[in-house]
Amino acid sequence: MTDSATRTPDSSPARPRVVIVGAGFGGVEAARALKHADADVTLIDRRNFHLFQPLLYQVATAALSPGDIAWPIRSVFRRQKNVTVLMADIIRVDVARKLVTDGTVSIPYDFLVLATGAMHSYFGHEEWEPFAPGLKAISDALLLRERLLLAFERAELAAKAKEQARQVTTIIVGGGATGVEMAGAVAELAHHTLSAEFRGIDPAAARIVLIEAGPRLLPAFPEGLSEVTRRSLEAMRVEVRTGAMVTACDRNGVTLADGERIDAAAIVWAAGVTASPAAVWVGAEHDRAGRAQVGADLSVAGHPEIFIVGDTAAVKNADGRPVPGIAPAAKQMGRYVGRLIAARIAGRAQDKPFVYQHSGDLATIGRKSAVVSLGRMRLTGFPGWVFWCLAHIWFLIGFRSRIVVSINWLWSYLTYQRGARLISDRERAGE
Amino acid sequence: MTDSATRTPDSSPARPRVVIVGAGFGGVEAARALKHADADVTLIDRRNFHLFQPLLYQVATAALSPGDIAWPIRSVFRRQKNVTVLMADIIRVDVARKLVTDGTVSIPYDFLVLATGAMHSYFGHEEWEPFAPGLKAISDALLLRERLLLAFERAELAAKAKEQARQVTTIIVGGGATGVEMAGAVAELAHHTLSAEFRGIDPAAARIVLIEAGPRLLPAFPEGLSEVTRRSLEAMRVEVRTGAMVTACDRNGVTLADGERIDAAAIVWAAGVTASPAAVWVGAEHDRAGRAQVGADLSVAGHPEIFIVGDTAAVKNADGRPVPGIAPAAKQMGRYVGRLIAARIAGRAQDKPFVYQHSGDLATIGRKSAVVSLGRMRLTGFPGWVFWCLAHIWFLIGFRSRIVVSINWLWSYLTYQRGARLISDRERAGE
Repeated sequence: MTDSATRTPDSSPARPRVVIVGAGFGGVEAARALKHADADVTLIDRRNFHLFQPLLYQVATAALSPGDIAWPIRSVFRRQKNVTVLMADIIRVDVARKLVTDGTVSIPYDFLVLATGAMHSYFGHEEWEPFAPGLKAISDALLLRERLLLAFERAELAAKAKEQARQVTTIIVGGGATGVEMAGAVAELAHHTLSAEFRGIDPAAARIVLIEAGPRLLPAFPEGLSEVTRRSLEAMRVEVRTGAMVTACDRNGVTLADGERIDAAAIVWAAGVTASPAAVWVGAEHDRAGRAQVGADLSVAGHPEIFIVGDTAAVKNADGRPVPGIAPAAKQMGRYVGRLIAARIAGRAQDKPFVYQHSGDLATIGRKSAVVSLGRMRLTGFPGWVFWCLAHIWFLIGFRSRIVVSINWLWSYLTYQRGARLISDRERAGE
Repeated sequence: MTDSATRTPDSSPARPRVVIVGAGFGGVEAARALKHADADVTLIDRRNFHLFQPLLYQVATAALSPGDIAWPIRSVFRRQKNVTVLMADIIRVDVARKLVTDGTVSIPYDFLVLATGAMHSYFGHEEWEPFAPGLKAISDALLLRERLLLAFERAELAAKAKEQARQVTTIIVGGGATGVEMAGAVAELAHHTLSAEFRGIDPAAARIVLIEAGPRLLPAFPEGLSEVTRRSLEAMRVEVRTGAMVTACDRNGVTLADGERIDAAAIVWAAGVTASPAAVWVGAEHDRAGRAQVGADLSVAGHPEIFIVGDTAAVKNADGRPVPGIAPAAKQMGRYVGRLIAARIAGRAQDKPFVYQHSGDLATIGRKSAVVSLGRMRLTGFPGWVFWCLAHIWFLIGFRSRIVVSINWLWSYLTYQRGARLISDRERAGE
C-alpha cells in the first residue's frame, strides 16, 4: 500500500483508487495494464466510446460509419471487474485534496493518470476552426462528410436549374499522414465513387488541393517516401502545394502567402495540434504546444501519484528526439504507467524509466497505394497498401468490427462504392 | 406523347419530364418502374438517402448504424440513366405552370408523383414532440439512442457520487408494430446488453412501459397474436398497459387519464401519424389525417398528370377497408403509378385501377420472438423470428448492407452485444 493510498479521506475500502481521465489509446492501455492490480480503477471520458482516431478520415469520406471505428468503453471493460467507467467531462483537478471534478461530481484518487490527448491548433487563428474543421472527433468527421457531399448535391441542383455549377473544390491544409490520407480518400470519393452518379456535373472534375507549409509531404517519414507520396497523389489528380502557407481562411476558401486565393466547398485542417490542458490542471511545466513536462517515469514533478501520458505529455527518446504524437506511443506510455502503478500497489520496486520503441510509420494514399517505413524496410504502392490494411485491421479492437471494417474495405475496393454517404438533418442543422 | 408533354414551355427536348417528390418506398418504386420509359425522370428528396424505415428502431436501440439502413439515392439509380437525383426540400407545387419548387429552384414537370410520406401526429398536442420523439427519421432514432444511453450513464455517475441513482425508465406510447418492436428492443438493450457493464447501477432493473390507448396490442393483426405479443413482452419484463391514454407529456415523463404519473428518462412516440401536406400543395380533398383523396388510378381529381402514392394518399381496398400505411403498400402504389405513366408515355392505354395486395403482417418482439400473419399462416416465437429476419434481410436493398446487417444481427444474437452505442457530441448538442 502506498503512502498516498493510506491517506484516503473517507471510509471507502482501503483498496487504492486509480483514476484515469481519457479513454483514448493511452487511457485504455493504462486501465488494461491494471487488470490484475488490487485497485479500484475509474476510467472517465466525456464520451461513452473509445475512438480509433487513425481511421476518422474514412468516416469523413463516407467509407466507414462512426460505429465501425468506435466502441463503447463499457464493452471494452465489461469483463475487467476492477474498472468502473464513467461518462463525465473533467474540467479541474484538485491536487491538494486529490479529486477530479466535472464541476458537479467529484471523484477522489490515490493515483491519477491524465490521458486527455490533443486538439487542433490553428497557430493563433482559432477563428478559422468553423471553416476548416480538423479530424479529431466523430463530430468533425461527420461535419466534413456533410460538407463534401452537400457540395456535390448543390452543384447538381444548380446545374438542373441551368445555372453554372461552380467547380467543387476541397482544400486539405497540412501534408502529414492525416492530410495525405484525407487527400487520397477525397480524390477517390470524387473521381470514382461519385463519378457515375450525377447527371448535370462531373464529379471527376472536382479539384483537390493539398497544402503543406514545409518543403515536403510526410515530414516524419524518410525523405524518399515523400517523393513517392507526391507522385502517387498527383497521379490521382490531387494538386500538391509544398512550401505554401495559408494566411487567411474563411467560409469560402483560403488565401496563400503569395496572395493566391483558392475557393473551396470544404476545407480540412490537418496542420497542427495542441495538447489538452492537463498540464495546467496539475500545475506542471509545459512547452509551447501545451504538453506537460514529465519525469522519466511520466509523473509530474512534486506529484509522484500523478502521471501524464499520450499526446498531452512532452517525452523525449533516449536520443533526445521527441516521442511522436501517434497511437503506438500513447499506448506504450499508458501500458508503462499502468504497470508502474500496479507494481507500486503490489509493493514491488519499479524504477525503470519509460523508453519509447518506434515500430514504424505508415500512411495510405488511396486504393492500392500506401507508404510504409518499418525499421529498414520500405514498402510503397500495392504491397504497402496490403500491409497497411492488415496492420489496421489487426489493431482494431474487437472481433465484430474487424469483420465489418474488412467487408466495407473489400466492398469499397471492389466496387468503389461507399456505404456511409448520409447527409442527415441533424448534421445539416449543425452547420 | 401525351398532351401535357407537348405543352412544355421551354426549348428542352421533347421527352416528357416525370418529377417524383420523395425517395421513400413509393418514390423509389415509381422511378424504377420508369426504367424503360422514354422520359426524363427527376427524383427529388430533402435527404440524399433512401431510408429503410422499418428498422429505424434498431438504430434507436444501438443495434445498427444509420449507414446500415440507408442508401444514397444516387447509388440506387447509378445505372438507370434516365433518372436525375436532386437533393431539395420541395415546399410548393404550381399546378397551373406545372412546377415544383424548394423556394429557390423551380423544376418543371409533365407528370408529377408525390410520395412525401407521413410524419408523427400528437393528436393536437404538437408541443409534446420534443419530449417524445417518434421514429420517422434518422435524427429521431439518434436522439432516442442518445437519451436511452445517456440515462444509464447519468445514473452510473450519480451512483459513483453516492447519490441515489434514480431508476431508469423508458416509456413507449403506442402499441402498434413500431411500439411493440421498440419495447422489445429496449428491454434487450437494458436487461441483457448493458447488464454486465455498470458497477453502481443494475440496468436489468430498468423499467420499460408500453402504453396503448386501445384494448389490445397490434390492432392491425389477428386478435390471437395480440395476446401472444403481450405475454412475450411481459416475459421480457415490459409493463404493458392497454386501454391507457396519455393526457400529459413533458421532459420528465407522462401522465395517464386515470391520473397516474410515470417518470421516464426517455419517451418514444409510436402512437399516430399524419400525412405530409401534398394534398394541400395540389388542392386535393383530404381526410382528417391529411391524406389526399385520389382516383382509382391514384391521380388527383382534375389533374390526370398528378399522382399521390404511399402514406400521403387515402386509398380504399375493393372491400372498402383503407390500404394500410406500410412499406409494401407504398411500393405497390409507386410501381403502379410508374407503370401507368410509362404506358401513357408509350401511347398505350392503361385503365386498370390500383388494387392493393396485402401479403401479411409481421412484428418482431425481440431476440428469438416475432409474430407473423401471412394469409392463413400464423407464426409466433422462434419460427416467427427466423421468418422475420429472412424477410427483412431480403427486402433490404443492396448486397453489402445485407451482409453487414446479417453479421450485426448474428453478432447481437450470439452475444447480446450492440455495435452502435455511441453518444456523440453532436447528438448531445442537439438535446
